[in-house]
Amino acid sequence: MGYHNILYEVAEGIATITLNRPDRRNAVSPAMIEEIVDALDRADADDAVRVVIFAGAGKVFCAGADLSEGDKTFDYAAQGMASPIRADGGIDYAHPAVRDGAGLLTLRIYRCLKPVVGAVHGAAVGVGVTMLLPMDLRIAAEGTRFGFVFTRRGIVPEGASTWFLPRLVGMGTAADWMLSGRLFPAEEARDKGLVATVTGPEGALAAARAWAAEVVAQTAPVSVALTRQMLWRMAAADHPMAAHRLDSRGVYVRGRQADAREGVTAFLEKRPAVFPDRVSADMPDYFPWWDEPPYS
Amino acid sequence: MGYHNILYEVAEGIATITLNRPDRRNAVSPAMIEEIVDALDRADADDAVRVVIFAGAGKVFCAGADLSEGDKTFDYAAQGMASPIRADGGIDYAHPAVRDGAGLLTLRIYRCLKPVVGAVHGAAVGVGVTMLLPMDLRIAAEGTRFGFVFTRRGIVPEGASTWFLPRLVGMGTAADWMLSGRLFPAEEARDKGLVATVTGPEGALAAARAWAAEVVAQTAPVSVALTRQMLWRMAAADHPMAAHRLDSRGVYVRGRQADAREGVTAFLEKRPAVFPDRVSADMPDYFPWWDEPPYS
Amino acid sequence: MGYHNILYEVAEGIATITLNRPDRRNAVSPAMIEEIVDALDRADADDAVRVVIFAGAGKVFCAGADLSEGDKTFDYAAQGMASPIRADGGIDYAHPAVRDGAGLLTLRIYRCLKPVVGAVHGAAVGVGVTMLLPMDLRIAAEGTRFGFVFTRRGIVPEGASTWFLPRLVGMGTAADWMLSGRLFPAEEARDKGLVATVTGPEGALAAARAWAAEVVAQTAPVSVALTRQMLWRMAAADHPMAAHRLDSRGVYVRGRQADAREGVTAFLEKRPAVFPDRVSADMPDYFPWWDEPPYS
Repeated sequence: MGYHNILYEVAEGIATITLNRPDRRNAVSPAMIEEIVDALDRADADDAVRVVIFAGAGKVFCAGADLSEGDKTFDYAAQGMASPIRADGGIDYAHPAVRDGAGLLTLRIYRCLKPVVGAVHGAAVGVGVTMLLPMDLRIAAEGTRFGFVFTRRGIVPEGASTWFLPRLVGMGTAADWMLSGRLFPAEEARDKGLVATVTGPEGALAAARAWAAEVVAQTAPVSVALTRQMLWRMAAADHPMAAHRLDSRGVYVRGRQADAREGVTAFLEKRPAVFPDRVSADMPDYFPWWDEPPYS
Repeated sequence: MGYHNILYEVAEGIATITLNRPDRRNAVSPAMIEEIVDALDRADADDAVRVVIFAGAGKVFCAGADLSEGDKTFDYAAQGMASPIRADGGIDYAHPAVRDGAGLLTLRIYRCLKPVVGAVHGAAVGVGVTMLLPMDLRIAAEGTRFGFVFTRRGIVPEGASTWFLPRLVGMGTAADWMLSGRLFPAEEARDKGLVATVTGPEGALAAARAWAAEVVAQTAPVSVALTRQMLWRMAAADHPMAAHRLDSRGVYVRGRQADAREGVTAFLEKRPAVFPDRVSADMPDYFPWWDEPPYS
Repeated sequence: MGYHNILYEVAEGIATITLNRPDRRNAVSPAMIEEIVDALDRADADDAVRVVIFAGAGKVFCAGADLSEGDKTFDYAAQGMASPIRADGGIDYAHPAVRDGAGLLTLRIYRCLKPVVGAVHGAAVGVGVTMLLPMDLRIAAEGTRFGFVFTRRGIVPEGASTWFLPRLVGMGTAADWMLSGRLFPAEEARDKGLVATVTGPEGALAAARAWAAEVVAQTAPVSVALTRQMLWRMAAADHPMAAHRLDSRGVYVRGRQADAREGVTAFLEKRPAVFPDRVSADMPDYFPWWDEPPYS
């Protein structure tokens, strides 16, 4: 698949996905979402990719949805798309045309087998900030403004953001930001837990790469893929017994694989480990341990 | 309904509910709870109300439950109330007389369609702090003391506070505060995420009004009502797919309503939006999308 | 049961469990886990114990699992333990030999009826940090290093830590720490919410004792035991109605017990309360209100 809205580059174990419509402040369109999802499929399938970084070309990370359709922006039927409107005027909510594009993107990031880092600058607004929520680390350059502006545009939060945001910053901050729709600076995003670090004006991508380089150098890919899904799934489980069952499997089966032998030996020998197991071939037989729920 | 324990005033889109028993440090009684619930019903039904603010008359916001019954305070049967005690001495826990009054209050706030802000000063202790937890923003004046004092009175936390508090401040802080029952200052409440801002000694109400005024001026009422319930419901959902289904409906149906057209147009024209949709008439057909669980 | 790997002392209402293999940096072995679980059973059954403190003898709190089996450390079959390997080479995950020892420990702490405090110094790495997560308060001496190093050893997080950690620090910080496996200092642990306080190099145990002494002096043991379980269970419940039902029972039944009468009377008389109810004899009839899920 050739990409027209993003750049995709792999170097030193890191895939960088760059939102690349700088003349439109990287406004997100359905075509861009399709390309990002394709790029994540490639990254997950490629053992040479250990970490995925998102960045934005030009002056901002992402200013939100593409508003070039003007007041029809969120009226898909008025744009001539397949219509879920029934003869009686009601909406068939199970119709695929109803499906929120931002959610397709965030659910795909949620399922990633590689850690995902957002390196943002300038602005991360609307879908530009909701796409960051299922990532594992967010780093912002000084001067970045964030905003969950949905209540100010007359719509509602998308991208499953009402599920993700309270799990990052707690309900109090989530309610403040999402109900008011106000813009807030990188420093507030850091103090409340949305971003891990605020760098200088040009430093976000370099900081993201430094974190990624440590993951590449130090960690076992299969362990990372398992841990990422354990965290997301267990964060929503109703009892720690679910995690205990899962860890027990994980420690047991991983303990017999080559990685664990190398990991302990390298540690005892005080040398860097070289992990042989690969995500493409060596995931445990119990993975995935869940069934993804259908959309409808 | 005339109120004897609270004041209720509406101005500039803001309903202010003032706990008004200053001679008793705004001690909460069953009658006060009944009046607050009635006032919230009015606020939710009144399109002129966009935000609800809670404040306290006199020296403190609220010092807790009314202890004028002395050592019978929490022994409802000894006070001559309808008794759930069975002939065999056991308790019929499904009996309405068992039901915790603080929970009636916090569950009502949880269901609100308008954002709710707590502007506190002096003290917020016992039910005075648990009533704040389902609110969307808490602002404290310098000098306010908080305390989940239940373990120090020989009872247990009420108002569904063991559900709400960990979602605001995490389990570590919740355990520290609730197990020790200790009093803590506004600055600790802010650093741990319970309150958004600490103002000067007289500044909490003004700060609450400033946040509310921004909501009134900038946001669409129907979007705010939906977002508030999306947050509370999705914060407890087990998979982001639940949010994706819900957002998809929301973006689709709201995208066709007048608010979304106005929201995008006003943004593109760089002017304030004037949102026409009303909570009383224009909530989407899928709202509410849940069934409230019964008490018993 | 005589202990060889820990010390167990009770004084002034506080049971102190000291990890006591200082020559091995308090490395955790199956025998140590068995002893800790036994000590917690004793503490829960002993009304003279109001709070449990964990500490470590020697230079560090706990450096993690015992690696003396070298590259067989996590390969239980290779160590001659009972094998869950089936004839076809697959693993019988329901076999008891699969069960993660760290999870036996953290699930036991999760069920405790007394508050549990971790007083750490030097290092809390691997199981040395996951055992802290179900505790109620964590206090770290300056200079303590923490690390969820599992991805660096080629295994996965254990001790149900993917369930506990996001509930303490949110998903963003949990993902950063657990995916990278990096070591981080006490100050970062405090800023992100893992530890409540960082003391001077020798001060962690004294600070833990000060918190415990306040619980001993001020709180009702039965109220504390109930509140601890209410928090853990309700933090994972899907609707605040579950907490409302539970609080209603709790306030009602506790309100009729001697503790509530003493708690209110002492408060009104401005004197310390002396609570008569005991965990061994006076827990309400509805406790426990849950069934623990089985391991398999």
